[in-house]
Amino acid sequence: MKPNFSLRLRVFNLNCWGIPYLSKRRGDRMKRLGDFLNLESFDLALLQEVWSEQDFQYLRQKLLPTYPSAHYFRSGIIGSGLCVFSKHPIQEFTQHVYTLNGYPYMIHHGDWFCGKAVGLLVLHLGGLVLNAYVTHLHAEYNRQKDIYLAHRVVQAWELAHFIHHTSKKADVVLLCGDLNLHPKDLGCRLLKEWTGLQDAYLETRDFKGSEEGCTMVPENCYVNRKELQPFPCGIRIDYVLYKAVSGFCISCKTLKTTTGLDPHSGSPLSDHEALMATLCVRHSPPQHNPSSTHGPAENSPLVMVLREALTELDQAVAQARWWATFAGYVIGLGLLLLAVLCTLAAGGGVREVAILLWTPSVGLLLGAGAVYTFHMQEAKGLCKARAELQHVLGRARETQDLGPESQPALFLGHQEGSRAEDQ
Amino acid sequence: MKPNFSLRLRVFNLNCWGIPYLSKRRGDRMKRLGDFLNLESFDLALLQEVWSEQDFQYLRQKLLPTYPSAHYFRSGIIGSGLCVFSKHPIQEFTQHVYTLNGYPYMIHHGDWFCGKAVGLLVLHLGGLVLNAYVTHLHAEYNRQKDIYLAHRVVQAWELAHFIHHTSKKADVVLLCGDLNLHPKDLGCRLLKEWTGLQDAYLETRDFKGSEEGCTMVPENCYVNRKELQPFPCGIRIDYVLYKAVSGFCISCKTLKTTTGLDPHSGSPLSDHEALMATLCVRHSPPQHNPSSTHGPAENSPLVMVLREALTELDQAVAQARWWATFAGYVIGLGLLLLAVLCTLAAGGGVREVAILLWTPSVGLLLGAGAVYTFHMQEAKGLCKARAELQHVLGRARETQDLGPESQPALFLGHQEGSRAEDQ
Repeated sequence: MKPNFSLRLRVFNLNCWGIPYLSKRRGDRMKRLGDFLNLESFDLALLQEVWSEQDFQYLRQKLLPTYPSAHYFRSGIIGSGLCVFSKHPIQEFTQHVYTLNGYPYMIHHGDWFCGKAVGLLVLHLGGLVLNAYVTHLHAEYNRQKDIYLAHRVVQAWELAHFIHHTSKKADVVLLCGDLNLHPKDLGCRLLKEWTGLQDAYLETRDFKGSEEGCTMVPENCYVNRKELQPFPCGIRIDYVLYKAVSGFCISCKTLKTTTGLDPHSGSPLSDHEALMATLCVRHSPPQHNPSSTHGPAENSPLVMVLREALTELDQAVAQARWWATFAGYVIGLGLLLLAVLCTLAAGGGVREVAILLWTPSVGLLLGAGAVYTFHMQEAKGLCKARAELQHVLGRARETQDLGPESQPALFLGHQEGSRAEDQ
Repeated sequence: MKPNFSLRLRVFNLNCWGIPYLSKRRGDRMKRLGDFLNLESFDLALLQEVWSEQDFQYLRQKLLPTYPSAHYFRSGIIGSGLCVFSKHPIQEFTQHVYTLNGYPYMIHHGDWFCGKAVGLLVLHLGGLVLNAYVTHLHAEYNRQKDIYLAHRVVQAWELAHFIHHTSKKADVVLLCGDLNLHPKDLGCRLLKEWTGLQDAYLETRDFKGSEEGCTMVPENCYVNRKELQPFPCGIRIDYVLYKAVSGFCISCKTLKTTTGLDPHSGSPLSDHEALMATLCVRHSPPQHNPSSTHGPAENSPLVMVLREALTELDQAVAQARWWATFAGYVIGLGLLLLAVLCTLAAGGGVREVAILLWTPSVGLLLGAGAVYTFHMQEAKGLCKARAELQHVLGRARETQDLGPESQPALFLGHQEGSRAEDQ
């Protein structure tokens, strides 16, 4: 690679709101999205909520001349909804499906059935290795009483962990998607602190779009304005995040969002706003990752956010175990009821009543069994994430105990900037 | 790192057969395993089927002086059963839970409830980065009519893919575990061809142990000899596999297995045999990965095994869709039955019969719904793996079309030896 290497990367991100039968004017919006992407000819278009594979196939056909490479990330029962269109050949791809993703009995929310995931694409651009990630985290339905908070924190952690473990040879990391997290939310801070990713909206000097970079705005006719009442400008939950490892630097030249209207025809492309970023990657002299300088201190942002996440997970583990125990008692009760009913049915007298009650009792037993099983699995998933967080926190503290000289040796292994070691 | 760098690594692997209440003499075997591991003081002990977390905690306490680092990989409802004890500090760990792992209604087999996974540990040994993987794939219950074959092939593929994406900065890769695959089985060939991992049993010049390196032998008193009848020497399904990237070389100095007897007391440690390998890692001049020379040709082992796996997955996708369609028809029938019963119940006459049949009909409907949902998810998982295989095969063919000169540029990105690029 030449020392004056420079690369301009135009990226598009949109949560497409493509729920078959439910999302308004889906077909028309998909058509206009395809036209817009063809016209703008981005390097990469990363989409969420393309729930129907037919929609993906439609876009694939439509975008083929401009974006010859594409991939649809399949997972769960409905799918992850994630897909990507690229002007450059996709060298490799893989995905990670989040361990926790809501509750199967919250059918009206539906997230559990989706198999929410993070997808990874590896692209080689003029000798530069780009790892592009696309994701969509669990939705937030009630910010005051958010029963999915712990699940979203675990998802943010798994996302950060997945990026950490799969991007060790990447020169540039790009993450786009709908995080369903406000910028100051625990999950968002955890993700940024652990990976060192930078927020295009905060970094760019040239921003055009909705106020405060919001990606769900009341001006959008598809948005439920009642839900946005506490946030007059809207909320910022969709992101373009990036970083370069030592030897490269990356900056966001321009960032644009749509503003509740289609950029050309006036009608919005989705209930979310699209993000359009122009990134610039350049060679730069190798340097230490700045995050390592503040990493191990007890009151560093990383350590503090890890501790906050651990407290959140502790509560969630206790709650999951409470539900499992409760379901366990119901199972016991159901078994007892069944035994009584069998005795009554055998003894005559109230036989008909006993027979009538037998099937609901079996139903109760099976239902309680399912709840027990689910919450046991939830507790396991939470404990797994907690163990990972504790390990990272422990390593951070060990490093602190050994003094600042030992930081690079012990701690850099956990930082994305570990590539600096072999530069 | 010094140019004459050399590292000796002693590794222990065992499927511990630690099923609470079911496995014979579990407590005694765990105690003897702990004593043995303490006495031998390996660098790494990688265990499978430690289903009870209490057993792990017992071993952790017992092994603490010799193996200060340990990790238990939690997943699924029961757990992955995987754990590891290390003499050296574990720098990082993560895991991947396999997308497909049997059927929930095959309760007597139980694999679905386990959350079978691959665990990764990153160790730094004298400047060398070692990625150690431990895994346990779905069991094979009937070799003649193996309904889990496609799931095991997908697991082997995901294992290879996970290793590929997480080991790009590792100097040495080690994989131990119970693959439930014979050496010539499709999954085993796929894993070896795609990752370039070498088999300690085939590579070592100093092997001591059971005939043909078998890890389930009829001499073991816990083994069901009837099941082993077609294989008089036993079967080899547990492995120590390894590779070094360019700049290092790795060899297996010695490999031992137990032979159906505890090495000291005479009674076996498990129904599987333990593997004990002494590996030697040395610096070596950077060189091209030999697998890249035969990678892209249409009749290369990699291309052939990819095509074989694709054929297997095509059949499995068709079967999963057949089951989903069948369950769909049952759902339709159940709904019709319910409607008829409601009409009958409202109309009088056979009201009691109608009420009696109502609950089993709802049960039928729910059951069919669950079967439909499960097989739709199975089809999605199979399609995901198929898309990954097709992509790799496509890239291999592209490389072939462009001639041998372009091989390193296009194809090495898929080979573990891609580290050679920046050496």
